[in-house]
Amino acid sequence: MSSTPGWVKQLKPSGPQGSELLAAERASSNLPVEQLSELLFTKEGLARKNKVLSVLKSEKLFDKTPNYYLGRTEHFQSAVRRAKALRNLRVKNNWTLEEYRLANELISEPLPYSLHDGMFVVTLSEQGTPEQQKLFTKPAEDYKIIGCYAQTELGHGSNVRGLETTATWNPQDKTFIIHSPHLTASKWWIGSLGKMATHACVMAQLIINGKSYGPHPFIVQIRDMKTHEPLENIHVGDVGPKFGYNTMDNGFLLFNHVKVPHVNMLARFSRVDPETNTYVPNPVPTLVYGTMTWVRSTIVMQAGSALARGVTIATRYCAVRRQFQDRDAPASAKETAVLNYKMVQARLFPLLAATYALHFTGKAMMDMYSENQKQGGTGILADLHASSCALKALSSTIAVDGLEACRRACGGHGFSSFSGIGQYYGNYLPTVTFEGDNYMLTQQVANYLLKSARDVLAGKPAKNETTRILSEFRSRAETGCAFDVIGSDADIVAAYAWRASSLAFDAQHKRETLKTPWNDLLVDFYRLNKSFAQYMVVKNFYETVQAEAKRGQVSRDAVAILRALFRLYALWTLDQEASEFTGTGACSERQVALIRVTVEQKLLAEIRPHAVRLVDAWAFDDWVLDSSLGRYDGKVYEDMFCRASELNPLNRIVVDPNPNSDVIFRKIEGQDPRSKL
Amino acid sequence: MSSTPGWVKQLKPSGPQGSELLAAERASSNLPVEQLSELLFTKEGLARKNKVLSVLKSEKLFDKTPNYYLGRTEHFQSAVRRAKALRNLRVKNNWTLEEYRLANELISEPLPYSLHDGMFVVTLSEQGTPEQQKLFTKPAEDYKIIGCYAQTELGHGSNVRGLETTATWNPQDKTFIIHSPHLTASKWWIGSLGKMATHACVMAQLIINGKSYGPHPFIVQIRDMKTHEPLENIHVGDVGPKFGYNTMDNGFLLFNHVKVPHVNMLARFSRVDPETNTYVPNPVPTLVYGTMTWVRSTIVMQAGSALARGVTIATRYCAVRRQFQDRDAPASAKETAVLNYKMVQARLFPLLAATYALHFTGKAMMDMYSENQKQGGTGILADLHASSCALKALSSTIAVDGLEACRRACGGHGFSSFSGIGQYYGNYLPTVTFEGDNYMLTQQVANYLLKSARDVLAGKPAKNETTRILSEFRSRAETGCAFDVIGSDADIVAAYAWRASSLAFDAQHKRETLKTPWNDLLVDFYRLNKSFAQYMVVKNFYETVQAEAKRGQVSRDAVAILRALFRLYALWTLDQEASEFTGTGACSERQVALIRVTVEQKLLAEIRPHAVRLVDAWAFDDWVLDSSLGRYDGKVYEDMFCRASELNPLNRIVVDPNPNSDVIFRKIEGQDPRSKL
Repeated sequence: MSSTPGWVKQLKPSGPQGSELLAAERASSNLPVEQLSELLFTKEGLARKNKVLSVLKSEKLFDKTPNYYLGRTEHFQSAVRRAKALRNLRVKNNWTLEEYRLANELISEPLPYSLHDGMFVVTLSEQGTPEQQKLFTKPAEDYKIIGCYAQTELGHGSNVRGLETTATWNPQDKTFIIHSPHLTASKWWIGSLGKMATHACVMAQLIINGKSYGPHPFIVQIRDMKTHEPLENIHVGDVGPKFGYNTMDNGFLLFNHVKVPHVNMLARFSRVDPETNTYVPNPVPTLVYGTMTWVRSTIVMQAGSALARGVTIATRYCAVRRQFQDRDAPASAKETAVLNYKMVQARLFPLLAATYALHFTGKAMMDMYSENQKQGGTGILADLHASSCALKALSSTIAVDGLEACRRACGGHGFSSFSGIGQYYGNYLPTVTFEGDNYMLTQQVANYLLKSARDVLAGKPAKNETTRILSEFRSRAETGCAFDVIGSDADIVAAYAWRASSLAFDAQHKRETLKTPWNDLLVDFYRLNKSFAQYMVVKNFYETVQAEAKRGQVSRDAVAILRALFRLYALWTLDQEASEFTGTGACSERQVALIRVTVEQKLLAEIRPHAVRLVDAWAFDDWVLDSSLGRYDGKVYEDMFCRASELNPLNRIVVDPNPNSDVIFRKIEGQDPRSKL
Repeated sequence: MSSTPGWVKQLKPSGPQGSELLAAERASSNLPVEQLSELLFTKEGLARKNKVLSVLKSEKLFDKTPNYYLGRTEHFQSAVRRAKALRNLRVKNNWTLEEYRLANELISEPLPYSLHDGMFVVTLSEQGTPEQQKLFTKPAEDYKIIGCYAQTELGHGSNVRGLETTATWNPQDKTFIIHSPHLTASKWWIGSLGKMATHACVMAQLIINGKSYGPHPFIVQIRDMKTHEPLENIHVGDVGPKFGYNTMDNGFLLFNHVKVPHVNMLARFSRVDPETNTYVPNPVPTLVYGTMTWVRSTIVMQAGSALARGVTIATRYCAVRRQFQDRDAPASAKETAVLNYKMVQARLFPLLAATYALHFTGKAMMDMYSENQKQGGTGILADLHASSCALKALSSTIAVDGLEACRRACGGHGFSSFSGIGQYYGNYLPTVTFEGDNYMLTQQVANYLLKSARDVLAGKPAKNETTRILSEFRSRAETGCAFDVIGSDADIVAAYAWRASSLAFDAQHKRETLKTPWNDLLVDFYRLNKSFAQYMVVKNFYETVQAEAKRGQVSRDAVAILRALFRLYALWTLDQEASEFTGTGACSERQVALIRVTVEQKLLAEIRPHAVRLVDAWAFDDWVLDSSLGRYDGKVYEDMFCRASELNPLNRIVVDPNPNSDVIFRKIEGQDPRSKL
C-alpha cells in the first residue's frame, strides 16, 4: 500500500494531459504576462522575491510537503524550528526587514516569532524612552528576550477601554503591581505568548491613588530566562486549537499581584512621576492614525494577493478539469473544460478582476499615504484613515469569501487539503476580525461620513476626495443624475460616487435631523460603509487603468484586458448591489438588466481566453502555492495521487474493520513515508 | 502550567455572570419552549432522542472532550473505535435503523462505517437478485464483510457516464475483468474505502464484445479477510487530509485486470446472459426519482438543524458577551450585550428564522413524498424531484454560509475550536457538493421548469404546484400584479411565485424562441433555481404557520412569534433579492425601501426578547453541541479557560525560544493532561 506497484506507476491520466491543456490556454492569448507582473510588483520587487525564494527553496526545513499531514503539536514544533531558521537566515543573508517579511509571506504560514518582530519590538521602539530602548528594545532586537503584545482579554476584544487588567502604582517602593482581578481579565489570543515569549508588553489600566487613568503599556517578564517556565504568580499558556493559525501560539496570561519597577511602564508619551506620584499625560495626543492607516492599506493590498492564490488555483484547475459535453454540442463531442461553463466564469472571473482591483486600490492608498507623509501634512489624514477602515473591511471580506468560492469552484477536489486553499483560508480568516472587526469598523467610517456630510451642508467642506463627491451630489440635488453606466467608464465611477453620497446624506439626515438612535442605524451604516469602500475600489481601479493607458509601459492589448477587468468588477458589483443603485437613482432598472447582459455575454467572453495568463501574472511559484490543483504545469491528477497514495501517513496502517475485534490499527512494516517528507 | 494554581482557580468572570444573563433572557419571554420543540420534533421524536442520548452519554468512549485536540490519525483511530462501539450498542440495545442514525447524528462526526450502512447495504438490497442477497447482503448486514460504494473517480465526479473503470465480459470463463485503464480512472473520495472496506460496489463501464453498455454495479473483494491487506492487483488507500470529514477514510482504488465471477454484477435490473453472452437491459427503466427525492428532502430538513447548531451557539454567546456601551446611553452605562446591537440581530435573526423555514420545508417535502408513495401515484413525482433538487441546493448553501456567519458573529472567540462551530462546519461543508453539486443541480431544475412553462404555453399544463403558479402568472400577462407585500402574508408568497414564474418564462423564451445557447443561460438558470426554491421555502413556512394557527397545539403567542419569523425570513430574503422582485414587477422600489424599515425596526425588535428561547426550542444538549460559547448555562468563559488551560496538550511542553538553541521542546514532568480526557 505504501509502496506503489509497478502497474500503477505506469498509469497516466486519460485524454489530453493537463500540461497540454494549460499550454494551449497560454497559447490562445498574447497577453504579456511579464509586463503585467512588473506592473503589479515592479521589476525590483520580482527580483527581490526570486532572491528570497531561492534561499528558502534550498533549505530542506522549509519544504512544505509535510504541512498538510501534521497535527497541531507537530505543526507548531515545525513552525518553531522554521521561525528560528528564518531568523538565522535573515542574519546570514543580511536581509532587510522587508525581505524578512517577504520570506514569511512566501512560507505562507504564521510563524511564532511574528508578534515579537511585528508588535513587541515596534511598540518598544515607538513608545519607549531612550533608557527603555537600551533596557528592552536592544535585547529584543537581538532576540535575547522574546516578547508579545498583550492587549485583548478573554472578556474584552475591540473595546480597549474596557480592559480589566490593572497596573496599580505603589508609591512606597515605586513599583507597579500588575494584577488580573477576574477570570475575564485573562489576556487572550495574544500571538507568540502561549509558548514563546519571555516578556509581554501588557496593556493594563493604570491606577494611581485609587484613580484610573486608562490603559497603558507595561513590560512584564513572564518566564524564566533559563528554564523558560512561567515565573511565580503568573499563569500563562496556549489558548488551544483554532480554525486556522495553528502554527501560532496564541496565548493566555493571568497575573497575581506581580510587581514591576517604575521603568517598566513605557513612558515616551505619558508617564507616572515617581517623585510626586502623579500622572503626567501625553502633551500632544498621539497621532495613531498614521500607523493604523498604513497597516490597513497593507491589508487591502494583501487581500488582493490572498485572493489571487485561490483564483490562480481554481482557474488553472478549471482549465484542466473537464466534465460533461456542452449541451448544444454534437453527441460525439468530448467533455469540455469546466472553465468554459458560463456559470463557472461568472463565479471566478469577477474574483479574478477583484484581485487586480484590490491590489491597485491598496497601492494607491499607500502611495497617497506616503505622499502625504512627505508633505508633512495632516490635511487628508482623517480622510485616509476613514478610507483605510472602510477598505480594510470590504477587501478582507471579499478575499475570505472569494477564497471559499474558489475552493468550491474546484468541486470535490477543492475539499482536499491538497487543493492548497483550505489551510490557507483558515490562516487568512482572522483578517476579518483583527485590526478592527469588519463590522465594528463600519461605525468609525459612518462617524466620519456623517461629519463630512454635515460640513458640506453647513457650507464648510474640508478639502478631500470624500467631500468632493458629497458636494458634487449636493450640487445636483435638484437636477438628479444621468449616468451612462454601460457606455462610459467614467460614468460608472460617478454612479458609485452618487450612490455612496446619497446613502451618506440619508444617514446624516436620519441621525441628525430625525434623531434616530445610533443603534437603529447600524445596518444603514454597514451599507454606507460598503458603498463608500466599493466606490473607492472602482475609482482606484479606473484611475490605474487610465494612467497605464497613458504611461504605455504595458501593451495596448494588456490595457484593453485591464479595462475589461475593471468593467467586469464594477458592473458585476453594481449588479450585486443593484437595488441600492436604482433606489438612489444612480441608474435605472433597464440599465441593470442591460448590465447583466453585458457582464454575462460580453465581458466574461472577453476575459475567457486570457484567464490563465491573467493568473500567471500574479507570479505565484508552485512552491508557494503548495497545491495539486494549481500547479503551473497542469499535472493535477499525478500530484493529487502522489500526495494521497505515497505520502499520506494513514496509508502506513492497516485497520481491522470487524466490529467484534478490539484491534484497531496495525502498522505496516517498512519505512515510514513521513521520513521521505 | 498544566496544573492550575490556586489563585487562578478562585477567579470568576467579572460583572453579571453568564448564567444570570441567560436566565434573565429566558425570563424575559413567555415562549413555550417545550411546545415548540414538540412542534419541531414531536413528543415521540424527543423521547427517542433522549433515550439514545442517555446511552451515548454513559459511554466514556463517546466523550467528545478530546476531539478538538486530535490529529488526523489519532482522530480517525478514535472514530474507528466509536464506529465499532456504536454498532455493538445498536445490537445490544436493539436500536432501529432510525435510532442508529440518530445516534450517529448526536455524535456529530462522520463515522467510518457510514457508507457501509448507508450505501453498500442499501445498494445490495435494492439491486441484488435473491441469490446475491444471500451471497452479499446477508454477510454485509452481519458486518462479516464491510463495503463501500465506489462510483466517483479521480477524473470524473458528477458525470457518471464519463466513468473510466471498465468491466469487460469474458465469455471464455464467464467472468468480468475489472480494470482501471488510466490514472484518472482511480476511484476517489469513496467513503469507508480508504481503510475499512473489504468489498466495494464498483460502478464500471460494462463492455461485451467490444461494445460499451454504460456504468453498472459490480461487487469486488478488495482486501484479504484476515490480514486486511489489499489483494493482488488492487491498489487502495486513503485520499489524505481534508478541510473536514477527517474521521472518514475517503479512499482511492485502482484495478489491474481483476477477475470477478458472473454473479458479482448486481443483476436485479439489467444483466449479462452468460449463455448467449448478450446484454439483457432493464425491462422497466429504474425509477430512481424516489430514493433521490427522499435523500434530498432529508438534506433540506437537516440543513435547518445544521444551521440551528450555529445559531444556538451564536445567540447564546451574544447574549452573554458584552462589548461597548450603547452610543446614546449615558456615560455611566454598563457595556451592553452584543445581541442588543441591531447589526448583530440583522446577521443572526434571519438565520434563526431560516432554521425554522428549512425544517418546515423539508418536513413538508417528506410528507408530500410519503403521501404520494401511499397513493402509489407517480403523478407529482417529477415535480417533487425537481423541487427537492432546487431545495437541496438552496438549503445547504444557506446552512453552510449561515454557519460561517454564526462563527463570525462570535467575534474573536468564534475562531477557537472550542466555539464548536469550526469543526462541525468542516464536516457539513461537503453537503454543497455531494448528492448533486449545488450548481449542477440548477440545470436539472431549469430543464424541468422550461418544460413546465412550455406545457403551460401550449395549453397542456400538468397537475401540480409548479404548473399552478406558472398558469396563474400567464393568466395575468396583460394585467400585471399588485402585491401588498408588507400588509399581507399571502401576498408575500404570491410575490415570490410571481418572480419565479416570470424568470421561468423569460428563460423559456430565451432558450426556445430566441434559441440562446444553453451555456449562455447557465447564470439565468442559477437565478431561476434560486427564485423557485425560495418561493417553496416561503410558501411552506407560510402554510405551516397557518396550519399551526388552526391546529392550536402551540400557544397563540408562539404562533405570533412563528409568524414574525416567517415575515422576517421572507422579507429579509426579498430585500437581498430586491432587484429581481422589482425587475419582474413583483413589487416596487418604494415597497423595498419600506421592507427594510419593517425588517430592521420592527421584526428584529419583535424577535429580540424571544431569541434565546427560540434557540432553546431546538433542544440541543450541551453534550451534542460541544461548545464553550453555546453552553445552555452561559458559563462561556469558565469553559473556554478550562479547555485552553487544563486540557490543551500544547501546555504540557516548554519551548526554548532562543533562535540559537537547537532545543525546541521539553516535556513537562507529570501526568499527560490527555489522559484526563
